[in-house]
Amino acid sequence: MGQVRHITLPAGFVASGVKCGIKTTGREDLAIIVADEAVPAAILTTSNQVVGAPVIWCRKVLPKGYGKIRGIVLNSGVANVCTGRRGLTDAEAMADLTARLLGATPDEILVVSTGVIGHPLPMPKIRRGITAAARTLGRSNDSAVVRAIMTTDTKEKSAVVQTRLGGETITLAGIVKGAGMIAPSLATMISVITTDAKIAPPLLHRIFRAAAAETFNAVTIDSDQSTSDTAVVLASGRAGKKVQSGSTSCRKFAAALEEVCRELTLAMVRDGEGATKLISITVKSAATKSDAVAAAKSVADSPLLKCAVHGADPNWGRIVMAVGKSAAKVAPAKLSVTIGGIRVFARGLPKNFSHRAVREHLKGDTVVIEINLGLGGEKFTAYTCDLSGAYIKINADYHT
Amino acid sequence: MGQVRHITLPAGFVASGVKCGIKTTGREDLAIIVADEAVPAAILTTSNQVVGAPVIWCRKVLPKGYGKIRGIVLNSGVANVCTGRRGLTDAEAMADLTARLLGATPDEILVVSTGVIGHPLPMPKIRRGITAAARTLGRSNDSAVVRAIMTTDTKEKSAVVQTRLGGETITLAGIVKGAGMIAPSLATMISVITTDAKIAPPLLHRIFRAAAAETFNAVTIDSDQSTSDTAVVLASGRAGKKVQSGSTSCRKFAAALEEVCRELTLAMVRDGEGATKLISITVKSAATKSDAVAAAKSVADSPLLKCAVHGADPNWGRIVMAVGKSAAKVAPAKLSVTIGGIRVFARGLPKNFSHRAVREHLKGDTVVIEINLGLGGEKFTAYTCDLSGAYIKINADYHT
Repeated sequence: MGQVRHITLPAGFVASGVKCGIKTTGREDLAIIVADEAVPAAILTTSNQVVGAPVIWCRKVLPKGYGKIRGIVLNSGVANVCTGRRGLTDAEAMADLTARLLGATPDEILVVSTGVIGHPLPMPKIRRGITAAARTLGRSNDSAVVRAIMTTDTKEKSAVVQTRLGGETITLAGIVKGAGMIAPSLATMISVITTDAKIAPPLLHRIFRAAAAETFNAVTIDSDQSTSDTAVVLASGRAGKKVQSGSTSCRKFAAALEEVCRELTLAMVRDGEGATKLISITVKSAATKSDAVAAAKSVADSPLLKCAVHGADPNWGRIVMAVGKSAAKVAPAKLSVTIGGIRVFARGLPKNFSHRAVREHLKGDTVVIEINLGLGGEKFTAYTCDLSGAYIKINADYHT
Repeated sequence: MGQVRHITLPAGFVASGVKCGIKTTGREDLAIIVADEAVPAAILTTSNQVVGAPVIWCRKVLPKGYGKIRGIVLNSGVANVCTGRRGLTDAEAMADLTARLLGATPDEILVVSTGVIGHPLPMPKIRRGITAAARTLGRSNDSAVVRAIMTTDTKEKSAVVQTRLGGETITLAGIVKGAGMIAPSLATMISVITTDAKIAPPLLHRIFRAAAAETFNAVTIDSDQSTSDTAVVLASGRAGKKVQSGSTSCRKFAAALEEVCRELTLAMVRDGEGATKLISITVKSAATKSDAVAAAKSVADSPLLKCAVHGADPNWGRIVMAVGKSAAKVAPAKLSVTIGGIRVFARGLPKNFSHRAVREHLKGDTVVIEINLGLGGEKFTAYTCDLSGAYIKINADYHT
């Protein structure tokens, strides 16, 4: 049976995912992703004021958000959040052991944990897991690696993009987990992206941040935001000429990185808790970029709109309501809305439209809403999913 | 069978609620509430940038939010929002006809509509309804009046408070509708309060605004916000000495008005769409009042927390997460949380607590969450309800 390759597809990386008994389900729950040497890396972490010990560790290792990193150790099941001094010691111990087994130093190892909050990590299991993973590093474990970071995710989510830089093909690959608690500014989302491109850490960080702004940070599942969100990119430098700021290569690399991030983002939204549809909300002709972002996210965050989409109800009133309550500058008489390309509201007034046609569009698995503010030239697209009874079931029955 | 008296209990008011055929259910859908003469009034309206024609009319009648008003005409079923020039003409026509039948001028009549958005008012039915209501004004129609403003509400919601000012009893009475789309800053909420107290319009407005800040504006059902929210208070001046700013009477009147608003608020939250419980979230020891408000509303708005409460899961992690993502200043090591008086999290760390005891509290119909930020002396209480599968059902099946 063919293995799906992704995270180790770019040259210069190996990985392993193992079952060490943190998850009561017995599924994979610990992974290591390793570069052949310390390589340029960039990291983005949650903007929540309460953060887990692993996030604190990563910020200590990469205080500017970029630097050189040898590997990442990840676990699911227990998030190591609200665990006080012990949590910090445990995160550091994970880095220490991983470093020792890889012949690296602890400050070259990032630590990422996701799962329940307030419980200490089961360190004996974690140690056994790290040891087992370090022994089995290779290029045929990618599925086990992505399974090891999943919590309520129902699907293994990965993306691969290739592009040519100066006559040579470079590869970017990513994995992501994140099903609920996904909100503006990286809620419970864990993503690792590897690439064989050659690029300096500060430029990598700048490009990664810009890509995340239009993708990971454009997502809201339920407006909640986690204490553990982390997205990392590692660049092994094994392929292509060095990516220089301002060059054509730089623009192509940035476009490829944004494409990976977007594919992961859309996969994540489609696998949102209880989600049955992807909803993309584009706000056009906003007076400012921040107006476009505010209006699009306000619609994406509206439970009423998400319920209406779930019920395939062409309820444009909820879109108008959500735009109106946002911080964006809105002139009601200039506001227009289309659903699936069908104009339902134009310049402040409802249009006669085929309810049946809009309902058909809403019944599909991808719903496209466009809002024209008629005030300027800025645009932004936010992504969310519908709100279903299954979301409630998942989150009311999930026990601490 | 005894009629429940409320809105006409304070001296100087009559009212009527009739069925004029706007609602397809055949229930009451039009009401008039009238003072014996033009009396001091104060009004609060939605902060949504998209507002219905009735809100535009009310703001024209009372540009400062206060003045003298003879009566209010209200309808449910159609909100008269996003109806353009015709909507404004219709709202004005409602005021005109009501004024003529009452022997008043149109600028003494407030208009309030709630229901679906984007549909024009069925004016022939509205006219017949206003005429019928004006003919049947009295003091035995209070139940019909409150039914006439209900949409997805399942219960008639009213409150009566009496207090003694300078040796005389004054009465305050209120009705409210509002089940979904209730969010900070008065989402789809309609409330009318009558009192026989004697008070000047500007002072009434100031006291009403302060009361609403701690009650109506402390509510969030789903973070959505309507285009029609309106709360009005009318004071007939038939009882007690004149309420003067800064006096003991003023403090007593303000306390009584806040009590009416709080009773209506709690009734509204308990009747939130799909709600099975009232959740009160108090943030204490905040550095500033706005921090207390931001933290409490962030928790109240968290779908994850609301699901956890629905499932009676003592998931304090979701409370900590929601506090952390808010704009409030938070020091994780100073943060403490109690649920039903039981300390579950203290100074940044989880406590050993009886899960069974917390679960018992969460199974009740009133859930009390207290969060201590440990940073100052300000506090605020927000109110919400749990998030249940019934919310989804109501809002996915509601058709435009």
